[in-house]
Amino acid sequence: MTDLNLMRSLAQSNNTKIVLLVMDGLGGLPRELCGPTELESAFTPNLDRLAREGMLGLMHTVGIGITPGSGPGHLGLFGYDPLKYMIGRGVLEAVGIGEKLTDKDVAARGNFCTVDTDGTITDRRAGRISTEECAKMVALIDDITLPDVELIVKPVRDYRFVLILRGAGLSPALNETDPQKTGLKPLLVVPQDKSPEAKHTATLVNQWVLEVADRIKDQRPANMVTLRGWAREPGLPGYEDIFKLKALAIAVYPMYKGLASLVGMQLIDGINNLEDQLEALRRNWDSFDFFFFHYKYTDSRGEDGDFDAKVREIEKVDQIIPRVLELNPDVLVVTGDHSTPAVLKSHSWHPVPVLFWAPRFTRCNPDVTGFGESQCLRGALGQFNAASLMSLITAHALRQGKYGA
Amino acid sequence: MTDLNLMRSLAQSNNTKIVLLVMDGLGGLPRELCGPTELESAFTPNLDRLAREGMLGLMHTVGIGITPGSGPGHLGLFGYDPLKYMIGRGVLEAVGIGEKLTDKDVAARGNFCTVDTDGTITDRRAGRISTEECAKMVALIDDITLPDVELIVKPVRDYRFVLILRGAGLSPALNETDPQKTGLKPLLVVPQDKSPEAKHTATLVNQWVLEVADRIKDQRPANMVTLRGWAREPGLPGYEDIFKLKALAIAVYPMYKGLASLVGMQLIDGINNLEDQLEALRRNWDSFDFFFFHYKYTDSRGEDGDFDAKVREIEKVDQIIPRVLELNPDVLVVTGDHSTPAVLKSHSWHPVPVLFWAPRFTRCNPDVTGFGESQCLRGALGQFNAASLMSLITAHALRQGKYGA
Repeated sequence: MTDLNLMRSLAQSNNTKIVLLVMDGLGGLPRELCGPTELESAFTPNLDRLAREGMLGLMHTVGIGITPGSGPGHLGLFGYDPLKYMIGRGVLEAVGIGEKLTDKDVAARGNFCTVDTDGTITDRRAGRISTEECAKMVALIDDITLPDVELIVKPVRDYRFVLILRGAGLSPALNETDPQKTGLKPLLVVPQDKSPEAKHTATLVNQWVLEVADRIKDQRPANMVTLRGWAREPGLPGYEDIFKLKALAIAVYPMYKGLASLVGMQLIDGINNLEDQLEALRRNWDSFDFFFFHYKYTDSRGEDGDFDAKVREIEKVDQIIPRVLELNPDVLVVTGDHSTPAVLKSHSWHPVPVLFWAPRFTRCNPDVTGFGESQCLRGALGQFNAASLMSLITAHALRQGKYGA
Repeated sequence: MTDLNLMRSLAQSNNTKIVLLVMDGLGGLPRELCGPTELESAFTPNLDRLAREGMLGLMHTVGIGITPGSGPGHLGLFGYDPLKYMIGRGVLEAVGIGEKLTDKDVAARGNFCTVDTDGTITDRRAGRISTEECAKMVALIDDITLPDVELIVKPVRDYRFVLILRGAGLSPALNETDPQKTGLKPLLVVPQDKSPEAKHTATLVNQWVLEVADRIKDQRPANMVTLRGWAREPGLPGYEDIFKLKALAIAVYPMYKGLASLVGMQLIDGINNLEDQLEALRRNWDSFDFFFFHYKYTDSRGEDGDFDAKVREIEKVDQIIPRVLELNPDVLVVTGDHSTPAVLKSHSWHPVPVLFWAPRFTRCNPDVTGFGESQCLRGALGQFNAASLMSLITAHALRQGKYGA
């Protein structure tokens, strides 16, 4: 187990290149007792070759038996202890759409929802309105003003938006207003501690919600909002500071871009699919040291409970491996931020399969013939905590000095 | 993971005998993808037999992905957390030549170097002068006196010496004076904190360096000195206190003797080769419980990048195993303090192979047929942190009581 101060003290510059390829929710489970998992069912000749040349292992991104959310899962992957650093959803959404947060900001994630005439919620996601529709709704409310505070409202994706309050004396110690089921009304914001800041912020937010409700009451299907995930920017030390790495995040979805930006990775716009991602990787290869390459749909199909569709997503990623290798990375890690077994239709606690490829500095493991959970069990990396991943990565990239004389 | 207070509370006396045979830098890497490592290439019939009878594993002496220096590597082996206990080079060199340090001492490692007429360093190691030459140089400067402090200067090996300042109000918070490359002048000593002790010590050291420079300016090739590794004796609890073990270090090189003495092992002089070491082991068998037997040249040949020569050094150690077994040790552990793969020509982060032999108390592992990194991967000990090694050793030596009722 390593800590960030140790990493900072050992970090060395080099011109080696590192790719961290994350298939979100990669880890899976068999459909029947002792059957293959999604990864083991997938035809992955390229990943299998890398597994034979590299090292496999199973990684706990938060801890043994703990089911990680996307935030903690990625923080763990990135080398930050997710039990130490907590990041609220409001911050994730804000940085995910490129908003720069200051230390005077409090951010919340908002949902547009549908309420009936007496204000009871009938659809918590307003029929999952499109991102374009969401932007039109935000335009109706983004000029609301309140005393002593700057308000920033931005559409995120589908029915989701972000609300940022910027000013002195604010606090994120507020409850969420989504009652979590239909048939109930949105909740009042109440301070969660006794500080004057929380009381002040609660008063401001309730005022804002009333004004919003008034402005959109005649719209359909979105005619109300709920707020949750109140948070401040966490002030994490960044990749350049800790690891001497210039890092680029190549991701489609805002939340993963947001997570990456919190650790100082640079973001890139206009990425909509694997083709865009590969092109961005190629185009930026000379300008960065570390590339976080995020693929979402393995998790999405796991959440859907569609085993076969998740297998196909894994196979799509396998197909791009040769194009990543053409760039000659020194270290390529293929893993997930958590498991999302189709049979569970949700994130799970199962450790994540890791394929660590840096063959110049790897001992052979004749027991391994391909990439899959059972083979990872016998892998050279054993089972380890995500806190060790960045140490292994920087060591194999020859970017880490000796500890002590 | 165990801590020293737990070890102390469980330690029991017994008359069992323990040998910790350390091949420095034992762990290696293949020369080509999936080839054998140095250890796997070596013909080691004796170690292979012990591997079949005992247990194998892979050990992290500092942490996963961390490259240990010799000091932290050995401290880890000895059961002390190297991230908690830091030992400066000055102390290592001093105790390595048998100097007893007090809590009033500050020690530095010195190098003789060569400077040109304007004081610029042209050779940081003065042509690597011999130990004899070094002793002659030290004789020219070991009677320098300064007010309020006792000065001890001793030759170490080749161009290296040790400087000890003994007195009240000293501090090791000083910079090193070696600019780390030729073409630059030695640096002035500057206090590294605001304490009066650091200022006082810096003043004394600068005075001393000026006097040294004046005395040896006409010598060749050594006509100047640099100083580094300022440190105090760390005050580690010893082996007798923690483990109830009378321990003897049987090592050729000063630094390893120094490390052993810091944990309370007794040292022995006049050891120059394996034959001397075996004879010392035999002669002292009845007087000690624990024998730290250190073999340096596996690391040296790894650092040279000479794969075949490292293989031969491993084979030399294999050949002495029957003579160690003749003494009937209860526990024999064969391992390294870190890896030094010839392909890297340096210490590395790869976990160290461990052969743990105490066959009366070991379960059979039919997967293991010999000693090598790949077999260690399948070993009964798995991958573990060095903090657990002494617990395993004392347990198998029946020198450790039950924890709790």
